[in-house]
Amino acid sequence: MKSLVLERKGELSLRDFPAISKAEETLGPRDVRIKLHTVGICGSDVHYYTHGRIGPFVVNEPMVLGHEAAGTVIEVGQEVTHLSVGDRVCMEPGIPDPNSKAARLGMYNIDPAVRFWATPPIHGILRPTCVHPADFTFKLPDNVSFAEGAMIEPLAVGVHAATKARVKPGDVAVVMGAGPIGLVTALAAIAAGCARVFVSDIAQTKLDIAASLSPAIVPVNVMNDNLVDTVHQHTEGWGADIVFEATGSPKAAAQVFEPLAPGGCVVMIGGQPDPISYDAGAAMIREARVENIFRYAHVFPRCVGMISSGAIDVKPLITRTFGFDESIAAFDLAASAPPSDVKMQIVIDE
Amino acid sequence: MKSLVLERKGELSLRDFPAISKAEETLGPRDVRIKLHTVGICGSDVHYYTHGRIGPFVVNEPMVLGHEAAGTVIEVGQEVTHLSVGDRVCMEPGIPDPNSKAARLGMYNIDPAVRFWATPPIHGILRPTCVHPADFTFKLPDNVSFAEGAMIEPLAVGVHAATKARVKPGDVAVVMGAGPIGLVTALAAIAAGCARVFVSDIAQTKLDIAASLSPAIVPVNVMNDNLVDTVHQHTEGWGADIVFEATGSPKAAAQVFEPLAPGGCVVMIGGQPDPISYDAGAAMIREARVENIFRYAHVFPRCVGMISSGAIDVKPLITRTFGFDESIAAFDLAASAPPSDVKMQIVIDE
Amino acid sequence: MKSLVLERKGELSLRDFPAISKAEETLGPRDVRIKLHTVGICGSDVHYYTHGRIGPFVVNEPMVLGHEAAGTVIEVGQEVTHLSVGDRVCMEPGIPDPNSKAARLGMYNIDPAVRFWATPPIHGILRPTCVHPADFTFKLPDNVSFAEGAMIEPLAVGVHAATKARVKPGDVAVVMGAGPIGLVTALAAIAAGCARVFVSDIAQTKLDIAASLSPAIVPVNVMNDNLVDTVHQHTEGWGADIVFEATGSPKAAAQVFEPLAPGGCVVMIGGQPDPISYDAGAAMIREARVENIFRYAHVFPRCVGMISSGAIDVKPLITRTFGFDESIAAFDLAASAPPSDVKMQIVIDE
Amino acid sequence: MKSLVLERKGELSLRDFPAISKAEETLGPRDVRIKLHTVGICGSDVHYYTHGRIGPFVVNEPMVLGHEAAGTVIEVGQEVTHLSVGDRVCMEPGIPDPNSKAARLGMYNIDPAVRFWATPPIHGILRPTCVHPADFTFKLPDNVSFAEGAMIEPLAVGVHAATKARVKPGDVAVVMGAGPIGLVTALAAIAAGCARVFVSDIAQTKLDIAASLSPAIVPVNVMNDNLVDTVHQHTEGWGADIVFEATGSPKAAAQVFEPLAPGGCVVMIGGQPDPISYDAGAAMIREARVENIFRYAHVFPRCVGMISSGAIDVKPLITRTFGFDESIAAFDLAASAPPSDVKMQIVIDE
Repeated sequence: MKSLVLERKGELSLRDFPAISKAEETLGPRDVRIKLHTVGICGSDVHYYTHGRIGPFVVNEPMVLGHEAAGTVIEVGQEVTHLSVGDRVCMEPGIPDPNSKAARLGMYNIDPAVRFWATPPIHGILRPTCVHPADFTFKLPDNVSFAEGAMIEPLAVGVHAATKARVKPGDVAVVMGAGPIGLVTALAAIAAGCARVFVSDIAQTKLDIAASLSPAIVPVNVMNDNLVDTVHQHTEGWGADIVFEATGSPKAAAQVFEPLAPGGCVVMIGGQPDPISYDAGAAMIREARVENIFRYAHVFPRCVGMISSGAIDVKPLITRTFGFDESIAAFDLAASAPPSDVKMQIVIDE
Repeated sequence: MKSLVLERKGELSLRDFPAISKAEETLGPRDVRIKLHTVGICGSDVHYYTHGRIGPFVVNEPMVLGHEAAGTVIEVGQEVTHLSVGDRVCMEPGIPDPNSKAARLGMYNIDPAVRFWATPPIHGILRPTCVHPADFTFKLPDNVSFAEGAMIEPLAVGVHAATKARVKPGDVAVVMGAGPIGLVTALAAIAAGCARVFVSDIAQTKLDIAASLSPAIVPVNVMNDNLVDTVHQHTEGWGADIVFEATGSPKAAAQVFEPLAPGGCVVMIGGQPDPISYDAGAAMIREARVENIFRYAHVFPRCVGMISSGAIDVKPLITRTFGFDESIAAFDLAASAPPSDVKMQIVIDE
Repeated sequence: MKSLVLERKGELSLRDFPAISKAEETLGPRDVRIKLHTVGICGSDVHYYTHGRIGPFVVNEPMVLGHEAAGTVIEVGQEVTHLSVGDRVCMEPGIPDPNSKAARLGMYNIDPAVRFWATPPIHGILRPTCVHPADFTFKLPDNVSFAEGAMIEPLAVGVHAATKARVKPGDVAVVMGAGPIGLVTALAAIAAGCARVFVSDIAQTKLDIAASLSPAIVPVNVMNDNLVDTVHQHTEGWGADIVFEATGSPKAAAQVFEPLAPGGCVVMIGGQPDPISYDAGAAMIREARVENIFRYAHVFPRCVGMISSGAIDVKPLITRTFGFDESIAAFDLAASAPPSDVKMQIVIDE
Repeated sequence: MKSLVLERKGELSLRDFPAISKAEETLGPRDVRIKLHTVGICGSDVHYYTHGRIGPFVVNEPMVLGHEAAGTVIEVGQEVTHLSVGDRVCMEPGIPDPNSKAARLGMYNIDPAVRFWATPPIHGILRPTCVHPADFTFKLPDNVSFAEGAMIEPLAVGVHAATKARVKPGDVAVVMGAGPIGLVTALAAIAAGCARVFVSDIAQTKLDIAASLSPAIVPVNVMNDNLVDTVHQHTEGWGADIVFEATGSPKAAAQVFEPLAPGGCVVMIGGQPDPISYDAGAAMIREARVENIFRYAHVFPRCVGMISSGAIDVKPLITRTFGFDESIAAFDLAASAPPSDVKMQIVIDE
């Protein structure tokens, strides 16, 4: 089965990968077999390619990349009732232990035993087919394309962040960072009720893309403008109800409380691996609530519903599409981080 | 000062009303004086006209009607800092005691001492000017018209309901009732994150209006279709995350739990004056949460923000506009309840 | 295996029951086998005995009774890590499908597929041994007796109710009903932070027991005293933050909002099978939140912890203990509802 | 009026203070005049004495100290209805603007305009009488002494922290720090439902006091024992549901996430003025919620209720009592921080 294999740091091959074929011979009673159609390239895929590791996760063996995917069901396990052969679907890439304490409490994403696609030693899905638990496979309505389906995974991060923030209708938010995660967070925040979202970054190209997504988005180039002043000007000096930290930059993270209103909420999305500086005094006088998030839980079908209803439009974020044979070139381009690209996708099954 | 006066049940006059003029001579230090521009006709105004009372509130003396209003600030009290002469504004019609226990806890709407426009013995604002606390007067941005400003009051009911429901992004909701409150609730629910809103009614004309408001709205004519079946069909048998009861009909209220999902929330908006039948068994097996709401609190500026950002568009709900001189005719028409009208407004200052 | 068998309505036998022995031959990898020690008699057990049914659940075949139990682990499945042979334990009587949607969301108690002991056609545990999922079996610390362990099940109802109420430290509560569930709810409410709990009933004997449990409990005999007046007198007219309905009486349920403070919460525990009267106007002007509860979820280990730490003392509720051979006499006595008894228990393994 | 005056850093006098007498001539219609009885010495009072400032608050003029107080009403304003001359009361030391946005939202403690006793330039109440808003003055029941009444202020910090944590019955908590605030937080956490509270410190004397307060408290001397290991041992490796940071030490604050369970909550009470190190990775994988608190709001009457009901006993924390004439000696002793003292109080009116 031809797969996009990260052989080791800096080396990709598009080649037959027997180990995968073997593992996928077995379809459990609660599983489905899926023919992959579209797979997005995530920053983490690129990072494994360029660095060979992310924190404690090290690529010691060849690993198939990819975890943002949509495809078509081609076989269903005998206990599966909500999916049928031919269903177009998207898939949640993390598989928890349903009997773990975290999973039973409804927080399967923080079950330490989660097996997550394209996180060593678990293989990803830049390959023709995969077997996946039906409980983590979600049907796409007719009006949601494969390309949109493969955007559900990154969108889920933003929607989970907005859910944790407990957005109230009419809230004002700040999203620090106009990268892919910042943009899906801004879209999710608006869909969740925010009346105004200030998106800050230092790259004007990214801010221009942000501004084009919704009239509710106000781009703030922090090279030129003071974020706190801008927010205060729009809120009679009160501040933003919610600040989403989506840069992953320690410097930005150190400033999350400044634009925040009294009683407001900060959501840490950036996934900082190292300790950061926390302005405890600024947090205290606002009685800030801080939510730290890790991936997502229970939001995939919600994201599908919001794309289908038009509440969220992710199509403008898909800036480039490649064929499976162009995968390596696609990763090389992604590794160069072209400023006008948000999300690149690979179509496996054309 | 010429005002629209409900002299007694069934009798309206457009006449000079000295009592009002007298009361408004005094502008407190935290007040503003407002020239009224547009005032919407609410069902309660009409009900006082046709019935002379609503529950315990009886029209014993001539009373000026109207409480959905927008206008222009023409004078500001000396301690007012956030408003200036010339500001276009909308106003919250209930004035609580800021020192009451409920108000201090942040729930001023359930302070029993609230004084509410056009609720006997408090006069409404179908008149040229009024004096109002600046704290309950909200500036309209340039892109929000007076007509939209006068829609904030009914919209606030829907936004408060959606806030209390604690909508999560991607929720599925049912709104029972396609009258004005049902429609603003549906709009608010979508703005608050609902991916799909089933609006049920028995009047097809109203359902057609509902369906035209958003692709996320699914109209259900319960004369022809079974609401529970329809919701289950769209949710794989799970049910709706939220059911908003906006009919005020005891019969509808008795069925609120049937379309509800396990762990879901029912919001009682209808304002039933009498005891209703409550399906305790159906509520129990779902562990339903029921929120009972009364008017709104803290949502006016949020509504203004959502109209300004485009998150909510109330313009399609304004189906007819009258001049001040046509007020009595407007009320007579409203009393006849034309099925294709949602909201009628009177322009005082043309 | 000698078991207490409800042969049919009104007829109990203490006899060998082969069907049970058969079913329990198999110990799954995530199961434990338990030697039962103490089993409490629940009102539902008695009701099956005296009426042969509870709502839709009908005793059509002989059924073993009992679901409030503690015992000792005598065998562990191969995947069980947190329990060992010899551990003293209590058991949660409902076994959900861990893969159901409700269970995955953390609400396994409202999974419609739950299999619950002594609810037809599932057998109870008034028998020498049983096999049970280890995930629903909880170790008792040394300072918690078997008798206390067998009280965890009814206590869990009260603790779940107090959890759903989201008690804040210093809240004032009302518990309507001084039966076993009312009393565990009062104890749970105090442990959860209530500073004062008014327990109402019409039976003075029960109220005397309530009053003896804690200085924070104020008994109110509604034959002599007005509950609303009493609560208002202690709260400067504000009312109770929480009202727990634990009578199951439609008449009491119709009055739950009267003693409630603005913004307060009503918890419906009584499990009314039929529709009840709901004072919508009273609920509305208070913006009451109503939580409807069904059994419990995730609270057994919490109850064990609170008994162990001394936060809750259930021993005064255990008013009578019988040997296994006296089981039928015990049920006959329980069916006569002696007013001074709260909980009767049967010791199987002496 | 003889008052305890901090003349400047390091210099206290007990002398007549005319400015105070003047200001208190006027009793507003919503005020009461109070004869002070007992006043506790807070760490902040001592810090102003020894350092002359706390962060931005600098003692530039002579200032009366003290803000933990109980006394007797000796005069009531004409609009005051809930208090009478002779009532024994405690007082909340911060007076917000009831019309501020924060106050209207129910968060008066984070209104930047709060005027707080013994925080420059506002005078404290180590003096014979004071005038105070009746809304922030709370009647003590007969079974609550003046000494206990003067403990309500520090207790309120702990109760507010426990409220913000949203303790669920049976939670396991860690309180970092066994100083006065740590101890009231531990008491509040238990009263709020915690089954077990691990209190950590490096001073064994303080830990011994902690351990004596409740069987639910487990003292952990982090000089000898590993806090995380201890918590994991008691929780089957799961961790604590809540961690209260009450040391104010940057070193402790950097470790708050380590003993925390997945989905748990950290409450920052310590009031760190400077940025601290925040272990973002540890917070992320647990999806920790962090609540930052500032003083308290709405909890004084709740604290009074819990002391009166016996839910919380603060008497063991009052380790030493002085006469008003001994005030300076009392402050000198407090400044030496004797390890076996928790709270010292001064009785003004003997």
